[in-house]
Amino acid sequence: MAKKLTKQSDNYSKWYNELVVTAGLAENSAVRGSMVIKPYGFSIWESMKTELDYQFKLTGHENAYFPLFIPKSFLSREASHVEGFAKECAVVTHYRLKNDPNGKGVIVDENAKLEEELIVRPTSETIIWSTFKNWIQSYRDLPLLINQWANVVRWEMRTRLFLRTSEFLWQEGHTAHETQKEAIDEAELMLNVYKNFAKDFLAIPVYTGIKSESEKFAGADVTYCIEALMQDGKALQAGTSHYLGQNFAKAFDVKYQTKAGKQEYVWATSWGVSTRLIGALIMAHSDDKGLVLPPKLAPIQVVIIPIYRKKEQLEEVSEKVNNIVKQLQAKGIRVKFDKNDNQKPGWKFAEYELKGVPIRLAIGPRDLKNNTIELARRDTFEKTTYSQDNLVEEIEKLLEEIQQNIYNKAVKFREDNTHTVDDFAEFKNIIETKGGFVFAHWDGTAETEDKIKTETKATIRFIPMEDGEIGKCIYTGNPSTKRVCFAKAY
Amino acid sequence: MAKKLTKQSDNYSKWYNELVVTAGLAENSAVRGSMVIKPYGFSIWESMKTELDYQFKLTGHENAYFPLFIPKSFLSREASHVEGFAKECAVVTHYRLKNDPNGKGVIVDENAKLEEELIVRPTSETIIWSTFKNWIQSYRDLPLLINQWANVVRWEMRTRLFLRTSEFLWQEGHTAHETQKEAIDEAELMLNVYKNFAKDFLAIPVYTGIKSESEKFAGADVTYCIEALMQDGKALQAGTSHYLGQNFAKAFDVKYQTKAGKQEYVWATSWGVSTRLIGALIMAHSDDKGLVLPPKLAPIQVVIIPIYRKKEQLEEVSEKVNNIVKQLQAKGIRVKFDKNDNQKPGWKFAEYELKGVPIRLAIGPRDLKNNTIELARRDTFEKTTYSQDNLVEEIEKLLEEIQQNIYNKAVKFREDNTHTVDDFAEFKNIIETKGGFVFAHWDGTAETEDKIKTETKATIRFIPMEDGEIGKCIYTGNPSTKRVCFAKAY
Repeated sequence: MAKKLTKQSDNYSKWYNELVVTAGLAENSAVRGSMVIKPYGFSIWESMKTELDYQFKLTGHENAYFPLFIPKSFLSREASHVEGFAKECAVVTHYRLKNDPNGKGVIVDENAKLEEELIVRPTSETIIWSTFKNWIQSYRDLPLLINQWANVVRWEMRTRLFLRTSEFLWQEGHTAHETQKEAIDEAELMLNVYKNFAKDFLAIPVYTGIKSESEKFAGADVTYCIEALMQDGKALQAGTSHYLGQNFAKAFDVKYQTKAGKQEYVWATSWGVSTRLIGALIMAHSDDKGLVLPPKLAPIQVVIIPIYRKKEQLEEVSEKVNNIVKQLQAKGIRVKFDKNDNQKPGWKFAEYELKGVPIRLAIGPRDLKNNTIELARRDTFEKTTYSQDNLVEEIEKLLEEIQQNIYNKAVKFREDNTHTVDDFAEFKNIIETKGGFVFAHWDGTAETEDKIKTETKATIRFIPMEDGEIGKCIYTGNPSTKRVCFAKAY
Repeated sequence: MAKKLTKQSDNYSKWYNELVVTAGLAENSAVRGSMVIKPYGFSIWESMKTELDYQFKLTGHENAYFPLFIPKSFLSREASHVEGFAKECAVVTHYRLKNDPNGKGVIVDENAKLEEELIVRPTSETIIWSTFKNWIQSYRDLPLLINQWANVVRWEMRTRLFLRTSEFLWQEGHTAHETQKEAIDEAELMLNVYKNFAKDFLAIPVYTGIKSESEKFAGADVTYCIEALMQDGKALQAGTSHYLGQNFAKAFDVKYQTKAGKQEYVWATSWGVSTRLIGALIMAHSDDKGLVLPPKLAPIQVVIIPIYRKKEQLEEVSEKVNNIVKQLQAKGIRVKFDKNDNQKPGWKFAEYELKGVPIRLAIGPRDLKNNTIELARRDTFEKTTYSQDNLVEEIEKLLEEIQQNIYNKAVKFREDNTHTVDDFAEFKNIIETKGGFVFAHWDGTAETEDKIKTETKATIRFIPMEDGEIGKCIYTGNPSTKRVCFAKAY
């Protein structure tokens, strides 16, 4: 690490951008709004994918792959869907280049204009439902439980690495069901898969709830979401699961024959999480020294740094370390032995702190004599001298402890930053000065929601699914059936 | 399976298309030239990915992700590269749609025209080398060994499921090295990874060699390839590995500081295989009854079908089968117990033959009494009655045997269809009537290559890497340094 990161307290947004780049997670590309995900960042995504894919298969889903391009007319079939996505579509209009007659490279060949433009998928409901029409005839074909891992493009004017990029990677589940109840159950099931994944892997506690009409997915009847709190007090929508009713079935005329022989429209869901989760991971846990990664998603869980002056010392230390590496790998622990001779231990310590490696081991000639090893935790900066005996078992335990500790810290932070408010002045004050989640009464109208947003920049992050106490809207004083959760958000 | 497949001998191409669709591997989509990969087909791709990804990491490569879009000007930087790809590029020209003022859905918003058009990547050399420029400063940054799993688009006029589609899935390795030798070694190393993968997983023997100047990759100095033989006697290029020299380093000005402090251009490779491999797999092994899948890539390795009349019998059989399923799964064997009551055993037998499941077990009340089970092999159609004791061990052995047998059959087929020819009349006759690989002398000129292609439709599939016997060109009689391999190809 050449220079120090900007401090979170000085400029949170600058701290984030610098951290993503200097830790080697991602960088901006030559294509406006598109990022390059570097190996260290991509490795986190691979771990996320592996676990989510396992969970999807466990719940009966199969992977498939649908076209990148969507005929323009498909997008128009579902009215609110096209309304929601039309303004951010990358459009393919031609299929060939030719040499510039003026000799300046290549130009678009106007003779190769498409009859109908193709949209680079912003999401795949329309192309998938046009396909499902052929896959679904009878109740025997249901439920149809499909997932796709893919890239999607939504043209964004203001982008930010991982959080909002024109192209991003994600998974999108698309399912078809016989009954409304089955579809709602599926949407809620996948919401819970996301919630548990956030808790158990990202070490982030999330609230679950329903989006207001203004915030819901274009084409959904109900959008469920998981909402996480970042360390700057802003909320981040980390995943959504949509109950789509029969909207897409009607738009693409997808009916099935019931057991009784009747023709009925099928019921649908879709659900997705994206590389945005990497942004959530960073902003939920990291600090002024760099990344803090929960062990379950850390590309390197343990780094070992040799301390030596002479080459023979390095050889002696290496012999011992190679043995430790083997033992750790045998337990499935991702370990790196950094014996790069170009950098001093101090530099390496800072570098792996920046990269968020949960456990750092340092070992030198004195340790060889004493049968010891120095262990430093990234989450607490605690340093302890361990015996080399039982080291592997100790590390296994410690990785679990660190995972849990990072989660507990995030829970505590959310508790400290969740407020219940009954007065609009106080509401404004908290949103402005402290941030965090604010539970307050709302009269249920889009108009009030919009006014609160305009005055405070806070939006309704979710409406809790459970019944709540009745009360009066903080803005209009009109009756409210329950508190909803407000926050400023990414 | 509702109706019988067209026979290979009647119409190979029709047989192929029907098989891909009826076996549930893939289908054409609403987007011309783009396919939908269905769950059964995608599962084969997932198994391929898992193994290849493992091999790539074992050889020191890391995964990353680069933008889908390439600025048009980037493509022009390397002269032969743009020459090769310009005619098949999907071009993004706009980034927004708007409501049609005539009320007919949405139209392209002419106010949202891009200053510079974006190309949907046909391959990623240009965007990756524009990025590598920032990643490479010193010899310490080399070698840089990167792989990407991605979708790419090459606009094809005549498409065919898996073999040639406008969009396909693939992996593309991109590496940078200090020396020419290191780059050549890398290109050859990855060629061997592909060759061994084809042998050990696809059960396909492949020849390796070098492409002629006319057939090499646009932007490469040398293109290495693996070539496989299909059952209709046509060759299929199954993977390529390119030594790129300093072409892209020069185009994007990527230099590194040597140990001696000098600035030098780096040396490059790229290499890829795609969903085309699924097409190779199908055409190398399958028959008139359907797919024949090598066990290592079969989504279902063992299917168990209960034979019964009464419901109680099914219950008794199921109890036994559930136990067998558990034992097989414990050994990591992919097994399906099909107790769907809507279909008769005979229908199921045909269905799983169509789907290429390597081993089919059938078990009924009589087997319960006799402690037996009937086993049928997909590759040989052999039926044997096994004892239920040691069944799992027998199946493990048999899966290996089937994998080997499918490979041996393909080797035998290739031997029977590889010819050595010294006379052009005989050459034409073999190419026309028998097909297969034909080794013949060639004078090394593009002109002769082109004439032979025009007269016979055969192309040079590869030039062997080993030294060969000298001789005379079958077409011109001019001197030749070694025989090269001709075939008609996909």
